[in-house]
Amino acid sequence: MATSSSSSPRRALGPSSRGVVPPFQVMDVLDRVAVLRAQGRDVVSLCAGEPAGGAPTLVSEAAAAVHASRRPLTYTSALGTHELRAEIAAHYRRWYGLDLDPARVAVTTGSSGGFVLAFLAAFEAGDRVALARPGYPAYRNILRALGCEVVEVDCGPETRFQPTPEQLDAVERGGPLAGLVLASPANPTGTMVDRDELAALTTWCRDRGVRLVSDEIYHGVTYPEPGAATVDPRGVCALEGDPTAVVVSSFSKYWGMTGWRLGWLVLPEDLARPVDALAGNVALCPPAPAQYAAVAAFAEDSYRECDAAVAEFAATRALLLASADRLGWGPAAPPDGAFYYWADLGPQLGRWGGSAAYASALLEQAGVAVTPGGDFDDRTGGRYVRLSFAAGPSAVAEAVARIEAFHAAT
Amino acid sequence: MATSSSSSPRRALGPSSRGVVPPFQVMDVLDRVAVLRAQGRDVVSLCAGEPAGGAPTLVSEAAAAVHASRRPLTYTSALGTHELRAEIAAHYRRWYGLDLDPARVAVTTGSSGGFVLAFLAAFEAGDRVALARPGYPAYRNILRALGCEVVEVDCGPETRFQPTPEQLDAVERGGPLAGLVLASPANPTGTMVDRDELAALTTWCRDRGVRLVSDEIYHGVTYPEPGAATVDPRGVCALEGDPTAVVVSSFSKYWGMTGWRLGWLVLPEDLARPVDALAGNVALCPPAPAQYAAVAAFAEDSYRECDAAVAEFAATRALLLASADRLGWGPAAPPDGAFYYWADLGPQLGRWGGSAAYASALLEQAGVAVTPGGDFDDRTGGRYVRLSFAAGPSAVAEAVARIEAFHAAT
Repeated sequence: MATSSSSSPRRALGPSSRGVVPPFQVMDVLDRVAVLRAQGRDVVSLCAGEPAGGAPTLVSEAAAAVHASRRPLTYTSALGTHELRAEIAAHYRRWYGLDLDPARVAVTTGSSGGFVLAFLAAFEAGDRVALARPGYPAYRNILRALGCEVVEVDCGPETRFQPTPEQLDAVERGGPLAGLVLASPANPTGTMVDRDELAALTTWCRDRGVRLVSDEIYHGVTYPEPGAATVDPRGVCALEGDPTAVVVSSFSKYWGMTGWRLGWLVLPEDLARPVDALAGNVALCPPAPAQYAAVAAFAEDSYRECDAAVAEFAATRALLLASADRLGWGPAAPPDGAFYYWADLGPQLGRWGGSAAYASALLEQAGVAVTPGGDFDDRTGGRYVRLSFAAGPSAVAEAVARIEAFHAAT
Repeated sequence: MATSSSSSPRRALGPSSRGVVPPFQVMDVLDRVAVLRAQGRDVVSLCAGEPAGGAPTLVSEAAAAVHASRRPLTYTSALGTHELRAEIAAHYRRWYGLDLDPARVAVTTGSSGGFVLAFLAAFEAGDRVALARPGYPAYRNILRALGCEVVEVDCGPETRFQPTPEQLDAVERGGPLAGLVLASPANPTGTMVDRDELAALTTWCRDRGVRLVSDEIYHGVTYPEPGAATVDPRGVCALEGDPTAVVVSSFSKYWGMTGWRLGWLVLPEDLARPVDALAGNVALCPPAPAQYAAVAAFAEDSYRECDAAVAEFAATRALLLASADRLGWGPAAPPDGAFYYWADLGPQLGRWGGSAAYASALLEQAGVAVTPGGDFDDRTGGRYVRLSFAAGPSAVAEAVARIEAFHAAT
């Protein structure tokens, strides 16, 4: 935008180059779903990564009481209330057996707010940060908006769509990495790294001084095999292997509180003060009413309610896996956690040329909305679709029947 | 953090340079207030820029009802619900007589979330952006974190602490500006630009293609002289003079909803789509329950309640101005709006050497907390204090008496 002249000719206004983020294909699908429904069409939408059940009862009741009391809802501390930070720390003992100083917990405006703070505090402009492709597109879009160089590591079925130390070695030959963003369970694949795989990655990062940012927002939404001797039914926390890691988490998924915009970071010691000062400037504080209510998320009854929701996801997942042949797609990623089914279109691909065209036809002709894979992987995502089974068993059963009929008719 | 070696020696971890934001002096004051109160000391705190009355009754009731209904609080559109955007647009007709397309309104996570989006969308890394000194410190801290060059324009009593076209001409001789951040009413001074002054600034910006970012979060918290023939009792909206400006506003101040974290941007046409895509990545959406409740902020009863709160601020301001001699400070900025009194310490300065030492002694010895000026102005702020009269008349009357006694005793 700047020119070198000092006589101040009129500059052309327009968005900055970093302000122009690629549009999401899923937004087109969601818009079209809204139009079709407004026309009276019966659409089964399996696009959104949102639990339909909402917040635990005690949390909703606490929120209603906070507002009914008309207590002042002024700014809290930038990193959140002491009470909520202490509850979050206690949660790490419950789920992971970890002792955590509440001073290391930063309550954030959703995990989104957490990523912005973590990336600003940990990485310089120009730093190279690695992440898996396919992956959640906001990682790379936020990093790029903040001036970082995103290094996408192509991860396929052979590594369960997760990066390995060998792949990172290869990436580092192109220049040293400052960071690695890891997601387990991952979006869009639902795959998880196990304890040994995570240990190998944390060791690789620690040996090189590479900052690990571990996205653990789907922890708890996991499907350990019944009877298996797993020690990590909720997911493995990266803090166990790397005290310098930044852990990102959220009330959105396990607790079903997407729209509330409340999440947290667990910070290594060197980033706690910088994140405090940054948060006071870029956010002031996370939403206060949600903070007061979210204390109730850690009550026994709330855990019980959330576990029941996960059991429903598990039943839906089982139904979906049992119907895999009827879907007529190719191989899918193992859905270890989250509520996503990431499938190669396989035999359907040739007919449609790509998942965007396929998803559009499926929506128009059969009234089933799935997410085309291009948003998650700009290289091979055109072969994949993501189906969210958060909508529950009846929606998924109906979708499977419609997809089967759609394939038979086209 | 990066090294040029490809043999991957261990790099030293630590916060990024942009992640290290200067700490706020006011945080030390607030921490000390909390400690003193915990010890049983009676402290009058005039630090915070927060209306004590809270949200309008209808908004609190709407929020309680939203949660009691247990309706799903999932993500909204990235720019907010259509209903709230339409209400905000209608508010511009009510207060300013402006016709505004709701598509130009972006609901944000407080004005803080709005500034991050606006700065990312409008400015490249390296762009020079001007703002007044003294000013709200988060402007410069966010801009610097995003890689912009902050150009502080020293504004004193002779221009009511607001920048002028002549000052901007002088600044441009050091290199072209990409943007100007203007605040009216301003924090910490409370001063406003009038219609003619704003027109001169918007013309200056438009002629040069400089993007104006107009902070209007204190609009409505204004003190027009009784009987004066003012046409802009709420403040003048920058959109009147510059359709390319970005307007930043908030539910925090006039509506008393600081902790809810809800604000908005009015975007020029070229930034609406970029901000939509950016918001979907860096924030996903503003807090959903607050959005549903905030629709009630535009009901007649809510305006009436907020105007009553402003009338109370006005009474407190009148009391403070009538007590100015008793305060024993030097000249103060004209508090046209907001709820701040920005005063030169005058005769008190010599005794204490600076406002940080003065504020500390005032707190310890007299139990009155005011904000030292260094946070707002790193050049001459050490001579100033900011007193917030949002706490109401009895708190301010008590503070004035204590300050008078403190000066007599020291």
